[in-house]
Amino acid sequence: MASNLLEGKKGIIFGALNDKSIAWKVAEKAKEQGAEFVLTNTPVSIRLGDLNKLAEQTDSLVVPADATNIEDLRDLFDKTMDHFDGKIDFILHSIGMSPNVRKKKHYDDLNYEFMMKTLDISAVSFHKMLQVARKKDAINEWGSVVALSYIAAQRTLYGYNDMADAKAMLESIARSFGYIYGRDRKIRVNTISQSPTLTTAGSGVRGIEGLMDFTERMSPLGNADANECADFTITLFSDLTRKITMQNIYHDGGFSSMGMSYRAMKMYNRSLYCDDCPDPEDIED
Amino acid sequence: MASNLLEGKKGIIFGALNDKSIAWKVAEKAKEQGAEFVLTNTPVSIRLGDLNKLAEQTDSLVVPADATNIEDLRDLFDKTMDHFDGKIDFILHSIGMSPNVRKKKHYDDLNYEFMMKTLDISAVSFHKMLQVARKKDAINEWGSVVALSYIAAQRTLYGYNDMADAKAMLESIARSFGYIYGRDRKIRVNTISQSPTLTTAGSGVRGIEGLMDFTERMSPLGNADANECADFTITLFSDLTRKITMQNIYHDGGFSSMGMSYRAMKMYNRSLYCDDCPDPEDIED
Amino acid sequence: MASNLLEGKKGIIFGALNDKSIAWKVAEKAKEQGAEFVLTNTPVSIRLGDLNKLAEQTDSLVVPADATNIEDLRDLFDKTMDHFDGKIDFILHSIGMSPNVRKKKHYDDLNYEFMMKTLDISAVSFHKMLQVARKKDAINEWGSVVALSYIAAQRTLYGYNDMADAKAMLESIARSFGYIYGRDRKIRVNTISQSPTLTTAGSGVRGIEGLMDFTERMSPLGNADANECADFTITLFSDLTRKITMQNIYHDGGFSSMGMSYRAMKMYNRSLYCDDCPDPEDIED
Amino acid sequence: MASNLLEGKKGIIFGALNDKSIAWKVAEKAKEQGAEFVLTNTPVSIRLGDLNKLAEQTDSLVVPADATNIEDLRDLFDKTMDHFDGKIDFILHSIGMSPNVRKKKHYDDLNYEFMMKTLDISAVSFHKMLQVARKKDAINEWGSVVALSYIAAQRTLYGYNDMADAKAMLESIARSFGYIYGRDRKIRVNTISQSPTLTTAGSGVRGIEGLMDFTERMSPLGNADANECADFTITLFSDLTRKITMQNIYHDGGFSSMGMSYRAMKMYNRSLYCDDCPDPEDIED
Repeated sequence: MASNLLEGKKGIIFGALNDKSIAWKVAEKAKEQGAEFVLTNTPVSIRLGDLNKLAEQTDSLVVPADATNIEDLRDLFDKTMDHFDGKIDFILHSIGMSPNVRKKKHYDDLNYEFMMKTLDISAVSFHKMLQVARKKDAINEWGSVVALSYIAAQRTLYGYNDMADAKAMLESIARSFGYIYGRDRKIRVNTISQSPTLTTAGSGVRGIEGLMDFTERMSPLGNADANECADFTITLFSDLTRKITMQNIYHDGGFSSMGMSYRAMKMYNRSLYCDDCPDPEDIED
Repeated sequence: MASNLLEGKKGIIFGALNDKSIAWKVAEKAKEQGAEFVLTNTPVSIRLGDLNKLAEQTDSLVVPADATNIEDLRDLFDKTMDHFDGKIDFILHSIGMSPNVRKKKHYDDLNYEFMMKTLDISAVSFHKMLQVARKKDAINEWGSVVALSYIAAQRTLYGYNDMADAKAMLESIARSFGYIYGRDRKIRVNTISQSPTLTTAGSGVRGIEGLMDFTERMSPLGNADANECADFTITLFSDLTRKITMQNIYHDGGFSSMGMSYRAMKMYNRSLYCDDCPDPEDIED
Repeated sequence: MASNLLEGKKGIIFGALNDKSIAWKVAEKAKEQGAEFVLTNTPVSIRLGDLNKLAEQTDSLVVPADATNIEDLRDLFDKTMDHFDGKIDFILHSIGMSPNVRKKKHYDDLNYEFMMKTLDISAVSFHKMLQVARKKDAINEWGSVVALSYIAAQRTLYGYNDMADAKAMLESIARSFGYIYGRDRKIRVNTISQSPTLTTAGSGVRGIEGLMDFTERMSPLGNADANECADFTITLFSDLTRKITMQNIYHDGGFSSMGMSYRAMKMYNRSLYCDDCPDPEDIED
Repeated sequence: MASNLLEGKKGIIFGALNDKSIAWKVAEKAKEQGAEFVLTNTPVSIRLGDLNKLAEQTDSLVVPADATNIEDLRDLFDKTMDHFDGKIDFILHSIGMSPNVRKKKHYDDLNYEFMMKTLDISAVSFHKMLQVARKKDAINEWGSVVALSYIAAQRTLYGYNDMADAKAMLESIARSFGYIYGRDRKIRVNTISQSPTLTTAGSGVRGIEGLMDFTERMSPLGNADANECADFTITLFSDLTRKITMQNIYHDGGFSSMGMSYRAMKMYNRSLYCDDCPDPEDIED
């Protein structure tokens, strides 16, 4: 949809790795809607991914930064404000990683140094970027900050591991900082709880295909994809949603409000009434 | 467990049809814990069920009453207070029925007279009993009122139909009346959101077996049964939970906090990877 | 913001009484964004209000209809589809009324005929319009239906009375019908939980000024007004939010996520430490 | 109430400092109900508090342990299992501390080393004790683990600071570990969301008196105190609540389900209509 919802708005987008990334799609859509932005990611992600391609495509500046590092964040905000010669209007936080998941540590056998890293990367980084922005007064009044979350913050999914705790904390930070930033500077802070999505990060989750088939059949509108998530993110950055803050909004085709759908139950029952099928326990992950 | 949690307490128990009923189990457990109570149900349910047997077993008075009928409710409370020569301490509301479900009207083809009956029987009856009790000042300070609910109040399950809306309203009435009754008389009002249960009422729900297999595998502790629900109800009637009110508490083996369990996913995947199985759409309900 | 978010979209807007109404603002904003729509309200509301003025201003057809009356609703959808020579894309339900509130019946002294009317007008009407629309297949794929709700559906506010139960049921209907309509026709159904708003309806609520001062100070962004609510509604009607359904979204300046703000506590404490002030109980409502 | 709800049960109670502590009350009530337990706290808390007095009073063993230290936790469980010559049945986690709160660092000026300590002490310690227990298979089937939480996990209260994020994470850990421990060993894990309580820890929260007056007037049953919280905890340790797990249950006199009470509004309005009162901003914290 050609429109001008973000005309004149400036922002920072964290976490675009490649063209499967939600952050990548947000950048494309934000550009279409008239925004300018700085793209950022860790140096290693920039090396492994295609961020420079996106920067070219959207005529954006890239500033490498580790979002857990205060010095990097200060540098990022300084360069961004220099680049735009002023404050910004929106930020996207699309960052998450668990060393415990990567190293296949089960949730009842966590490495606590890893867990602290999970929290630092996936949740505390959101506080850090907000605190640095706040101290530099880097965001215009009625600016909008969005972080991407997942329903694991409310409901346990096997294999999602300590990322669930990190997402719960991420959403809490959105509320806690949303209060202060709203009260003091009229800036809103929200999280989007997105369907499971086959990004490079999402692909790493155990049993993602079976889960996505289930959530697809459970959700009356099917799973939301990265493009659709980007569309919704644009509305949260726009001036049309100025009074929404401290919220976690489900963008998931209705999954979060479902107890059991006809389509998912049928599929499940097929297994239930299947005499020749292998024992469920014998199926490989 | 032999104990005396309800020593000296008196109450009214609505909705025991037969020995599968949760209300039946509550009556048995309440008796074990030292309570006395009046049993009530509609005249037709008393005829179809075994309430008089329960009355004998628990040495209780039976007072027939249609919980949607104010006159009946007044009569019930009068007779109860006469019987005990004083006020009561607890009430259980275990009542629900949808003519739309019975007549197999789908949710997008509801009969609205039926819907109003669903609401009246399954939700407004709770308000009526509370209002009659309140006007007669029939409950002692720190008394406890409990109604049975279901997670359909928060999450849609195909086939549960207008009972979902009735349960949402039932839980709202618990909050609304809980505020007034708490403030004025220190009486608490809560709902228990119970696992799907194979009572005579539960058996009527479409696809209940498949659903119960799914919830059993999703819930880390498995589905809660009627006996376990009765145990928990006793704690809510006891003096140990005096400051809990206006709450809906899940008694469901953990189901409500699950997104996906390993066991349910395995079972679902069996269907997913089953080449010879019939098409899900071809399986009979 | 001049834009074209609803370019080519057609709809029905229920419940615009006068220029304080949220539905009125939605009509104005929808027009600005390129939509066409039919305006509807009960005959008596049309007589008492200014709907014809709005119709002129937005170049819209007015079709009187009582949203609790199936015949009226059928007539409304027929005339609307005739008028547009086709299906519609969005519906706004902004309807609510409690005879118990009007007649100052307290929540522990409800008239149950009144209560049934509260439910019929404020909640069941939403089901009725959806069911009529569904039977006539009146909404295009990816259409969007929105009803206005209030946080009383989750948390009790003294004086809001049986409207709380009606709003809880309204939100449940949005989920229940959202499942079916999403699955079958890709149509989404959501509710907006709006700040207390000084519309003609809102003004009738007991103690609304004190409450609005409190919520204003509690909410980091202050209360959301009718214009802002209309802005947000536009985003839910647009194609940018296609995968959001069965949700209740708080549009309230952050109020719903607040436990206690500094500003509200200060104001409250002033009363607490005020020696000369009258007793709280002596203050008139 | 003399009873035998915990007859034969053994447990560990973390976090009793002095006779104002909730953990202290839980110990007393658990003893009354027939339980035996080990008491634990950090060495410094034991020195500053009265734990040895409680140990004498309840005939319990004291094992000092820092709950953030795996070695200490292993030692604690070993000594406990030696002491009882077998497994335990319940654990209470009543631990929380924020160096940022202590050092009066505001939420938009956090020290991140402090924040990591807040998380480690107040949330990760819960995971650590569960993981150590799980590895040692220290808890009997149908055992029960409870941690104390606060509504700040869902709703922001000014001044509660990074403890809000820690409590959100604590509740998430209860769900995440509750799934695994339930599935594998039938052990349940829950959190109690308790009213603000004037314990030694609670007294440190900014503006606690004003807040407690507000919550007292908002809650239909008034604030829940430490003794009442202990009563409820006993029910969660008992066999009567075997199928409740992964839940956060509000024990707060109804506060969490209130939007606005008559009594709180009256008090607030007094301030609103008070002409001579000082400006709210001029009142000292």
